[in-house]
Amino acid sequence: MSEHSPQILVSEVGPRDGLQSIKSIMPTEAKKAWIAAEAAAGVREIEVGSFVPPKLLPQLADTAEIVAYARTIPGLTVAALVPNLKGAENAVAAGAHKITLPLSVSETHSLKNLRKTHEQVFEEVRGIVELLRGLPKDQRPHFEGGLSTAFGCTLEGPVAEDKVVALAARLMALGCDEVGLSDTTGYANPAQLQRLIRLVRAEVGEQALTGVHLHNTRGLGLANALAALEVGITTLDASLGGLGGCPFAPGASGNIVTEDLVFMLDSMGFDTGIDVQRLLGVRRIVIEALPDEEMYGFTPDAGLPKGYHGPWGIPAHAA
Amino acid sequence: MSEHSPQILVSEVGPRDGLQSIKSIMPTEAKKAWIAAEAAAGVREIEVGSFVPPKLLPQLADTAEIVAYARTIPGLTVAALVPNLKGAENAVAAGAHKITLPLSVSETHSLKNLRKTHEQVFEEVRGIVELLRGLPKDQRPHFEGGLSTAFGCTLEGPVAEDKVVALAARLMALGCDEVGLSDTTGYANPAQLQRLIRLVRAEVGEQALTGVHLHNTRGLGLANALAALEVGITTLDASLGGLGGCPFAPGASGNIVTEDLVFMLDSMGFDTGIDVQRLLGVRRIVIEALPDEEMYGFTPDAGLPKGYHGPWGIPAHAA
Repeated sequence: MSEHSPQILVSEVGPRDGLQSIKSIMPTEAKKAWIAAEAAAGVREIEVGSFVPPKLLPQLADTAEIVAYARTIPGLTVAALVPNLKGAENAVAAGAHKITLPLSVSETHSLKNLRKTHEQVFEEVRGIVELLRGLPKDQRPHFEGGLSTAFGCTLEGPVAEDKVVALAARLMALGCDEVGLSDTTGYANPAQLQRLIRLVRAEVGEQALTGVHLHNTRGLGLANALAALEVGITTLDASLGGLGGCPFAPGASGNIVTEDLVFMLDSMGFDTGIDVQRLLGVRRIVIEALPDEEMYGFTPDAGLPKGYHGPWGIPAHAA
Repeated sequence: MSEHSPQILVSEVGPRDGLQSIKSIMPTEAKKAWIAAEAAAGVREIEVGSFVPPKLLPQLADTAEIVAYARTIPGLTVAALVPNLKGAENAVAAGAHKITLPLSVSETHSLKNLRKTHEQVFEEVRGIVELLRGLPKDQRPHFEGGLSTAFGCTLEGPVAEDKVVALAARLMALGCDEVGLSDTTGYANPAQLQRLIRLVRAEVGEQALTGVHLHNTRGLGLANALAALEVGITTLDASLGGLGGCPFAPGASGNIVTEDLVFMLDSMGFDTGIDVQRLLGVRRIVIEALPDEEMYGFTPDAGLPKGYHGPWGIPAHAA
């Protein structure tokens, strides 16, 4: 564990990835309460919505209002997903601090998810980079290219690592500030994840890959998170209550659970800035606003260990 | 991951730890079918029961018959739990290949679980060692002392690592062949687990600690398994469908799920000897025999990745 970094950014994606994957529509006021409560618990980055046409995702139709609200919370990085240039324009107008455009490594998945070939997505990336470069620096959001289905695709099956590396390089060459790796389908394992992180970093540089987006579809979510930390990843996406997944990848539901991830990191001695107990309390807001949706998570059910107060374990000779 | 060992022994504890924790009693014939099917899927060690008074655990009253049956399966190591000398005598008579006596690091838990102080447990250990030494070598089961609540106790809270190390040393001095570390309460985290494994091994030697028994109570089960592998642990207990837990540690249910563990190991390239697809098929036997019990596991729900055939991922330049 020698490569451990003490400070880890847990990026909450529930208001985007969670809410886009369920049928219920969360009222705007409940979203604001959720975001405010998580920020108050110490969460420093939240992906609050997606700038997609409301017809496609009515659950996220209020994203501009949510971004504007979230920006009023001191210290919070407000992130949003954008599927194309039009979305990026709306995100910039709303004032998002960070935008992520997904590029599916599997072109089959790309066609289903964004209805675009790789070349068509690159065209959007070019347009977004041009847009951002025309903005004053202090109004320019951080632009991430998110490589989805990077660990395999429910439609294509295995995905060649060469292809992931090449697409990451292409996104950086086009002008992205950073790339991210997404286990959209929950296929990743710790060995594969470490290998791919190293390969991509060898190509684009360490600073250009700091975060991963993991799912818990096959129960390996936290093991993968641990593996990512070990090779120097410092940003981990997670969703409160494990809400979410990918509606176009059947069976591939289930972001890693923020509560379980934060408990793991906190008990290991990582500094997330998050108060676990307060974070657990945030669930109530989501459960009350979405009474028909299932919330996941083991730590919330089991509770914190008896006598828990941060880093866990009594090291030898310290007792 | 430089400390990885390619061969990992997954020890199935469902027929003991799983069945002792539920109200339903599995018929003897179903137990035999379960054990035979798991062995046929490639599982090489199964803890098939516990030699406790049938009044206490009627679910395991047929343990002697199950041990005798399991011994007829070629290549299978037949393990059993024994709470005391009397249990060990019965295990020897039945022909168990391996016996484990639990010693709870938390004396409060020991009194609740085994109704014995540490000193009283040591007396039993002495008696068992004497019994085993009187047997011909080829009839002598491997004798493990299992340190339960090693990572914290639902009654006492944190547990001092010094204490775990001292008890491990004591068990080895009394004549155990090996010790094991059990996260009975699901409190362990990867950092704590690696630290404690190293501390205990520094005291008793690497060969005297090769296995850990993990729970998934707070969702960290597979992350902990990964952490254990990284420091050289080669035996991991797991329970099919995550059946089981500890009836005397409230809220502390949930062994790690054999199916998810084997999928993780297999996809990472570890040699478990187990056919994942066949293993998934074994669930049906347990579900049919225990229609009222909940079975856990993510991989069984999600299925194997599309195109899955062992070690997953297409390494760069190999595609």
